[in-house]
Amino acid sequence: MMKPESVSLHPLGAAAASSAAPVPEMLCIFGTGDLGRSLGLRLLQSGYRVVYGSRRPHSCGPLPQGAQVMSHETAAQSASLIFICVHREHYGFLETMAPDLAGKVLVDLSNNLKKGMYPEPNAAYLQRLVPGASVVKGLNTLSAWALQNGLLAGKQVYLCGNSAEAKRAVAEMATKLGLTVLDKGSLSAAGELEDFPLQLFPEWRLPLSVAVGLTAFFYFYLLIRDVIYGYVEQDKDISYRIMVSLGNKVFPIVSLIMLSLCYLPGVIAAFLQLYRGTKYSRFPDWLDRWMLCRKQMGLIALGFAFLHAIYTFITPTRYSVRHKLITLVVDEMKNNKTTPFYFDNTEAWGQDSFYVLGILGFFLYVLLGLTSLPSVGGSLSWREFSFIQSKLGHLTLFICTAHGYIYGWNKFLRLSTYKWYTPPGYMLCLIVPSVVLVLKALVILPCVDRTLTRIRQGWERNQPREEMGKVTNL
Amino acid sequence: MMKPESVSLHPLGAAAASSAAPVPEMLCIFGTGDLGRSLGLRLLQSGYRVVYGSRRPHSCGPLPQGAQVMSHETAAQSASLIFICVHREHYGFLETMAPDLAGKVLVDLSNNLKKGMYPEPNAAYLQRLVPGASVVKGLNTLSAWALQNGLLAGKQVYLCGNSAEAKRAVAEMATKLGLTVLDKGSLSAAGELEDFPLQLFPEWRLPLSVAVGLTAFFYFYLLIRDVIYGYVEQDKDISYRIMVSLGNKVFPIVSLIMLSLCYLPGVIAAFLQLYRGTKYSRFPDWLDRWMLCRKQMGLIALGFAFLHAIYTFITPTRYSVRHKLITLVVDEMKNNKTTPFYFDNTEAWGQDSFYVLGILGFFLYVLLGLTSLPSVGGSLSWREFSFIQSKLGHLTLFICTAHGYIYGWNKFLRLSTYKWYTPPGYMLCLIVPSVVLVLKALVILPCVDRTLTRIRQGWERNQPREEMGKVTNL
Amino acid sequence: MMKPESVSLHPLGAAAASSAAPVPEMLCIFGTGDLGRSLGLRLLQSGYRVVYGSRRPHSCGPLPQGAQVMSHETAAQSASLIFICVHREHYGFLETMAPDLAGKVLVDLSNNLKKGMYPEPNAAYLQRLVPGASVVKGLNTLSAWALQNGLLAGKQVYLCGNSAEAKRAVAEMATKLGLTVLDKGSLSAAGELEDFPLQLFPEWRLPLSVAVGLTAFFYFYLLIRDVIYGYVEQDKDISYRIMVSLGNKVFPIVSLIMLSLCYLPGVIAAFLQLYRGTKYSRFPDWLDRWMLCRKQMGLIALGFAFLHAIYTFITPTRYSVRHKLITLVVDEMKNNKTTPFYFDNTEAWGQDSFYVLGILGFFLYVLLGLTSLPSVGGSLSWREFSFIQSKLGHLTLFICTAHGYIYGWNKFLRLSTYKWYTPPGYMLCLIVPSVVLVLKALVILPCVDRTLTRIRQGWERNQPREEMGKVTNL
Repeated sequence: MMKPESVSLHPLGAAAASSAAPVPEMLCIFGTGDLGRSLGLRLLQSGYRVVYGSRRPHSCGPLPQGAQVMSHETAAQSASLIFICVHREHYGFLETMAPDLAGKVLVDLSNNLKKGMYPEPNAAYLQRLVPGASVVKGLNTLSAWALQNGLLAGKQVYLCGNSAEAKRAVAEMATKLGLTVLDKGSLSAAGELEDFPLQLFPEWRLPLSVAVGLTAFFYFYLLIRDVIYGYVEQDKDISYRIMVSLGNKVFPIVSLIMLSLCYLPGVIAAFLQLYRGTKYSRFPDWLDRWMLCRKQMGLIALGFAFLHAIYTFITPTRYSVRHKLITLVVDEMKNNKTTPFYFDNTEAWGQDSFYVLGILGFFLYVLLGLTSLPSVGGSLSWREFSFIQSKLGHLTLFICTAHGYIYGWNKFLRLSTYKWYTPPGYMLCLIVPSVVLVLKALVILPCVDRTLTRIRQGWERNQPREEMGKVTNL
Repeated sequence: MMKPESVSLHPLGAAAASSAAPVPEMLCIFGTGDLGRSLGLRLLQSGYRVVYGSRRPHSCGPLPQGAQVMSHETAAQSASLIFICVHREHYGFLETMAPDLAGKVLVDLSNNLKKGMYPEPNAAYLQRLVPGASVVKGLNTLSAWALQNGLLAGKQVYLCGNSAEAKRAVAEMATKLGLTVLDKGSLSAAGELEDFPLQLFPEWRLPLSVAVGLTAFFYFYLLIRDVIYGYVEQDKDISYRIMVSLGNKVFPIVSLIMLSLCYLPGVIAAFLQLYRGTKYSRFPDWLDRWMLCRKQMGLIALGFAFLHAIYTFITPTRYSVRHKLITLVVDEMKNNKTTPFYFDNTEAWGQDSFYVLGILGFFLYVLLGLTSLPSVGGSLSWREFSFIQSKLGHLTLFICTAHGYIYGWNKFLRLSTYKWYTPPGYMLCLIVPSVVLVLKALVILPCVDRTLTRIRQGWERNQPREEMGKVTNL
Repeated sequence: MMKPESVSLHPLGAAAASSAAPVPEMLCIFGTGDLGRSLGLRLLQSGYRVVYGSRRPHSCGPLPQGAQVMSHETAAQSASLIFICVHREHYGFLETMAPDLAGKVLVDLSNNLKKGMYPEPNAAYLQRLVPGASVVKGLNTLSAWALQNGLLAGKQVYLCGNSAEAKRAVAEMATKLGLTVLDKGSLSAAGELEDFPLQLFPEWRLPLSVAVGLTAFFYFYLLIRDVIYGYVEQDKDISYRIMVSLGNKVFPIVSLIMLSLCYLPGVIAAFLQLYRGTKYSRFPDWLDRWMLCRKQMGLIALGFAFLHAIYTFITPTRYSVRHKLITLVVDEMKNNKTTPFYFDNTEAWGQDSFYVLGILGFFLYVLLGLTSLPSVGGSLSWREFSFIQSKLGHLTLFICTAHGYIYGWNKFLRLSTYKWYTPPGYMLCLIVPSVVLVLKALVILPCVDRTLTRIRQGWERNQPREEMGKVTNL
């Protein structure tokens, strides 16, 4: 298996010798910018040899120790895989050296500054300039920062290209760097890949829009009911409430609705599966998209709950609250000097229950948020994760909804609550969570739950009798 | 080293060719459910070819791009390693195709819905059905979710099986997926492996029981002392205190005790090592188990401290607290109109010190909690981790204990404190932390510390003179 | 490629056989302490065979299942790579068995208890004792704890040694364990490597010193202005303010300054690049070091902001605050009985705006802190990370600075504010953030921004015309 000569070179035994080639492969990088340098460093650390191609080989700044630097032409000759770490605007020189690049694999790592800057993707343009080479688009989601700091383990990167051989070579190199590679097909996917790094929180867009919309709606709704009503009907200037009081009403409302929107698609999906009698039909598109942004919805709900908590904590230090308290005492003293100041036991119970439910709800909220941290969630088993996100999540929703109901416990039937015939904000916000909780309660009824479990294990209601239950899949 | 023909297939240099076989290995998956599909996707991304075996090859729903799908029999013939992603209830068809499976490696990934559903583990049952194949139980802790999202890097999985060769093949495949493999021995361990994914926070069970027990005890203790005593002896109805006031007494008490229980096993272990004069004797079982759940104890203590903090923050907005304040003013006005309202400087100092210690303690608590996040803790060096968890941890315990002592500074000697001859809760809760701190102070005395350091470096008191200090291990 | 005999051993196809040697490589570990045992466990799990060398092969405590244990001499003979997991003080025995170790690779994993314990690094000492072996220093940053818990994926380790072959063998083994290896050169770097694990938060040292310095300065400054001034000029004993009031002034001041210091180097670097007209000149050393500790500065700023928030939350429960409130009411009642208690709308607006800005600032602060968690930051794309840390960071700074300005909005022109002709603390603390915000505003002016973007893409102002814009690098 090994020639005797190589034994002297490798005194480390057969295993080492058989898995490593005697001389590590040489890779070439065009471009000595941040990305080029970081990539070269990482490649050297993974056991490759690296040669840089530069237009000024003798004055191109500090390069990783161990790398060589040559002119573009010489560098290209010494490797079969070339990383193009150069801006698209300067691809021109590659056309002039096309003969040197024939048969090589060119990895296009370039990104543009914004979407639609060029009609043709960078990689397609490169392939047109150098038709004899196999262009592979990919790794462009990696940042110089991540490369330098070795944050690559398990990161997913995308590849596309017309040559399967070329893609395999790049995928192998990427795997050696610790990356996970996903093949996106032929070079026609290059445009899509180049748009990836330009996306800004794509999965947050929908939940954020919902949150902003709800916030705006409830803010204006409460502005009319609280401030403008007071100004018009009672001629009071309570415009200062715009800053804190209104916020502390809008935030819990939006938080509770967002949290319930986070669990609504789950129950819709359950009812859909029950109705269809199978889990093998696809959900409608809107439901799929909704289910994919549940985590983001929950985190935004947590953010609003956090703001609600802080707004509540600073309440007693506010000028207007202290003023109200003092006025209360002064009034009490002037009008009611003889009787002892009355203590309302029911009020004390009601308010304290209200607080306890709010605190417990917030505590569970924070717990849910913590387990959605990648490093915490990743260390849970599947059953633990689903226990927390489903059981604990619904408990949180239940407690927070109860918190809302207790807030208005004695106001639901009072006429003065319905200013200008509009219900207060907290009543509106209780609708969705109540619906979700009722639907969820139906789903966990033993008889419904049993059918659902069977469906989720692969059982189908409309399956021909003889096939039924023959083989179901995990 | 390479035949010329293969050069034309691999224009990428010797290294690539030598580390990858010309044609990637084919793996077979029985079952096209969630798990089967996610596993296939991941295998394809890791460079394998994948063929699915399905009872309905032409209508089995969407499969990962690049995978083939065939009947079970044909699929089995094209691979030597077959993943069984089918529910145990449907293993029957495997028996009928036993001849096709002879000599194959069957990986049983199945899990049950609850413990003890079947007397025989799934993998043993499979081996009995197909005696000619080598059954390997394993990877069953992976979820479809983790597979789809590429969250495998470094994750530990377990294997067991009777054939060492079969296990090695599966281990190799798992390593290629980025997993870390732990061999649990022969197929008789299959039952244990099948119980793993059914466990719900096993390492949290003991700490949670302790926390629940302590909470229940102190809640009833304080209920009697605070509410029932007031009702019986003073005929006051202060039952509203059950909600918030009692909670805000019980939570800090339990938090402090849990925190001290988190550091108690460390000092016990130190004294045990000092007494025995060696680190090579095993600790008693109960101590080992206690030490393994210290992190969970600390996190539960942090949870209780968090609740205590929020309960404190909302205190001034409570009805009963505001009522008390107003009553105070009204009384002051009625009885004491002439003298200026007296400011007690000692009281101001005492209370502010109490708050400062509480805040600092909570701050350190949160810091400890943050460093126990896997991603933060993992980025610390060993010395940094031990600095934070040991030095900072004991400092936190010290500050929180001082916070408790200051709370009762002027009440320890007052007779009215001991209602019905029972000490108040905060006195009881100071016992364990005080003991831990005193023991820890003894351990860090220079003379004791020196001996302990030597023991922990491998020195043994009862070692024969000539052997002593010859070789000690890191 | 394979002999027929090996086929019978490997019924798993060609791919498996070609990537694994028929019999896994044997590695030797000297020392059966915690580190030795954890390392052996991990090596066994990665597919190696492991043999321990021990002075007492028959009584060396529990070793990982599957490992053999022999005398040092016998163990050394069966492997070409030997891990030395023994304290430096006991290296003596290695000298006596030097002939057995000739030609072997010795990996020195040892660490010392403190810096400068020995004039010569452990690895150099080992190489002197066994000149015939190739000593490689490395992996000494790994802890037994991390090895046992499999927390190795992607972790960076360092190697150094005089033999390139030996280093490659160790690097290969480390890569198989999931580690990322960084070669630090020849054995002369061993001292540096041995100092690594002894460092305690090296990158936190500078930010912590700045924070402690600022805290001390402002604490004494405010002590003089608030407490001593009151005592000297107004003969009031308000020393109780030392505990909470002063802290709640110092913490936000230091937090705001630290946050602005976190963004100051960025704008300095931008102006430097604009002035120089190129990005290829190195920044001065102090700027580089400053930029490297921005994350730590920001986290310390967050810590102080957290303390400020909690101090504010507990404010209304403080004795002195409640006393002041009661005094206010009592005074009001005595002197002002006839007029209704006056409500100052401007005051209500001002204070509520102050709170809202503070809360929003704190919320964004926490968001910034969360994205700096390794697991969260690692899951963001480069553009998302820079959006959060730059855009959101500067917004946070702006909001917190506005929070500071509103605090003193009506006090800037009041003479009584300048006690003993000194400005209050919050004025001093607004200087640095204001400067940073003004400079940042200049940098994002369209004309300046355009030039800066071109410079950062590689354009150079003083480049010869013909070369300019020819090739720029990513």
